[in-house]
Amino acid sequence: MAPTRLSDLSEGDLLARLFPIFDGTKGAAPLLLGPGDDAAVLGSPSGAVVLTTDSMVRGRDWRDDWSSGREVGRKVVAQNLADIAAMGAVPTGLLVALAADPSTELAWVLDLAEGIAEAAREAGAPVVGGDLSSAGEDMLLVAITATGDLDGRAPVRRDGAQPEDVVAVCGGLGRSGGGLQLLLEGRGRTHADGEPEPGDRAVHELCLVHRTAGRPPFEQGPVAARAGATSMIDVSDGLVRDLGRVARASGVRVELSGRALTRAAAGALTEALGEVDALRQVLSGGEEHSLAATFPVGAVPPGWTVLGTCVAGEPAVLVDGAVPTVTGWDHFRP
Amino acid sequence: MAPTRLSDLSEGDLLARLFPIFDGTKGAAPLLLGPGDDAAVLGSPSGAVVLTTDSMVRGRDWRDDWSSGREVGRKVVAQNLADIAAMGAVPTGLLVALAADPSTELAWVLDLAEGIAEAAREAGAPVVGGDLSSAGEDMLLVAITATGDLDGRAPVRRDGAQPEDVVAVCGGLGRSGGGLQLLLEGRGRTHADGEPEPGDRAVHELCLVHRTAGRPPFEQGPVAARAGATSMIDVSDGLVRDLGRVARASGVRVELSGRALTRAAAGALTEALGEVDALRQVLSGGEEHSLAATFPVGAVPPGWTVLGTCVAGEPAVLVDGAVPTVTGWDHFRP
Repeated sequence: MAPTRLSDLSEGDLLARLFPIFDGTKGAAPLLLGPGDDAAVLGSPSGAVVLTTDSMVRGRDWRDDWSSGREVGRKVVAQNLADIAAMGAVPTGLLVALAADPSTELAWVLDLAEGIAEAAREAGAPVVGGDLSSAGEDMLLVAITATGDLDGRAPVRRDGAQPEDVVAVCGGLGRSGGGLQLLLEGRGRTHADGEPEPGDRAVHELCLVHRTAGRPPFEQGPVAARAGATSMIDVSDGLVRDLGRVARASGVRVELSGRALTRAAAGALTEALGEVDALRQVLSGGEEHSLAATFPVGAVPPGWTVLGTCVAGEPAVLVDGAVPTVTGWDHFRP
Repeated sequence: MAPTRLSDLSEGDLLARLFPIFDGTKGAAPLLLGPGDDAAVLGSPSGAVVLTTDSMVRGRDWRDDWSSGREVGRKVVAQNLADIAAMGAVPTGLLVALAADPSTELAWVLDLAEGIAEAAREAGAPVVGGDLSSAGEDMLLVAITATGDLDGRAPVRRDGAQPEDVVAVCGGLGRSGGGLQLLLEGRGRTHADGEPEPGDRAVHELCLVHRTAGRPPFEQGPVAARAGATSMIDVSDGLVRDLGRVARASGVRVELSGRALTRAAAGALTEALGEVDALRQVLSGGEEHSLAATFPVGAVPPGWTVLGTCVAGEPAVLVDGAVPTVTGWDHFRP
């Protein structure tokens, strides 16, 4: 009988199914060794390595009735690549740790691996190693570690924004949060819904971004760094909350333009949610993984949208001079 | 009221409790940035970075009634450092990912962090970043990623053993497996048992190694590499199983001396378990994290114990010419 659950295979058999999926991610990256030995070895072209880790837990960070394994794999990779990009770095490699109830469907795990490999290939960051653990009933966690290279540049931190700098964003805003809202309200589209009818397009777009993180413009992280970005962060917990981190770390006040935010809320977001909720998601929607950065006047690169400016003053994020009433996402708090 | 559970704190409050614990791990390591930004940046002195990840799951990889948080922290770090050492590398940094039921005791998490920091300081490998996730009821997982540096050397792989090479080990054998056996049989000693009476010493020693991994001689990984080790692995799943991996990867037969193994089983192991179980644990006990390597004749460094030789032939691990009846540990299999 063909194995259908993880408990039907030995660890070696499972790795023999997973390695070929990750093999295709190697490409032309400076990979020296991995996976299959005690540890992987990766070239670090500029002598410094950028490191980050981010996890997803079933039932907390995704629901199986909404998202496929492949979609979860794409999303967890994107979350890590966003942190690499937000330092101004190029991704160089990924480690994958999986902790799973042994009764987990093998097909789901292979689908997850395909999603991880797909996102890894697109980013040019090979899967160089990982770890398998068995876990309790219904538990499924995937943790990714990503490495990056700065090509000899200094990292773009959160604490470098200066008064008079321009605040700009590259990538969407509020779409993932909008998709989550639609799914929670029972109006969303899941991985099982297939291709959309013309009338479903806006809802489909938002929900797809929520399920997969879409394709944030990670290549713009190094572009922003070369252009002279003074600070950068990825929008993971909501624009206001994440810019608030930049404001506090840098000791500046961030003043956003209501008109620019309203423009960001136009299109699919307003079509699917209406103007009020669309604007709310632009300000507070998490897991978008777009890049937000500050630049000296005149240095904003093509493809980036200006949202406001930094000024001297108590650290805060204001919209048209007022404190917005929505913020963002926190773990652990009920 | 002072917070006692993770759900009593915001994520920022929890990080503010954890960062000072990890601050003391920085020492003189070539750390450029971290934690607190999107990603950490680490110096990679020789232009190549060694990477590994390993996780522990409550109820699978530890039991709270046996092990304290600090002991779990020490052990999960040791598991990662062992993989770095087994490549012949020096550890340079650690990332810590925690996925926890929000009702987890804050004191336990802080104790875990102390254990991680303690092991990080001893190894000179600073904690440079991490990730927090909320998880389902009773779930608690800690995943570590470790980086290492080869100082310009090639990594010591599993596939380089040659016929006529000597097989040697550095560090204990079977002690962690012996401690696990004692704990499973209700004869073990837990973190709550405190200091041992003279009659408990052997049992105490084995159980402490099982709970914390003890202090495997990780500095001997680079020593073995410089001495010309042709292959190396850490003993994580049992000596026979792990040397079997070397044998298969290298295409050699490993012949171990029963007398040398009996000698390794002497002392606390035989005192606590008797001769038969002591030898069984030497052959099959997992989580010891000692280093096993192959060397050209005459190249075995001081402090390493010779256990046998490599010969041409079908890949296998034999003891005094026969296939041993015990093997080792596998995940997922019931």
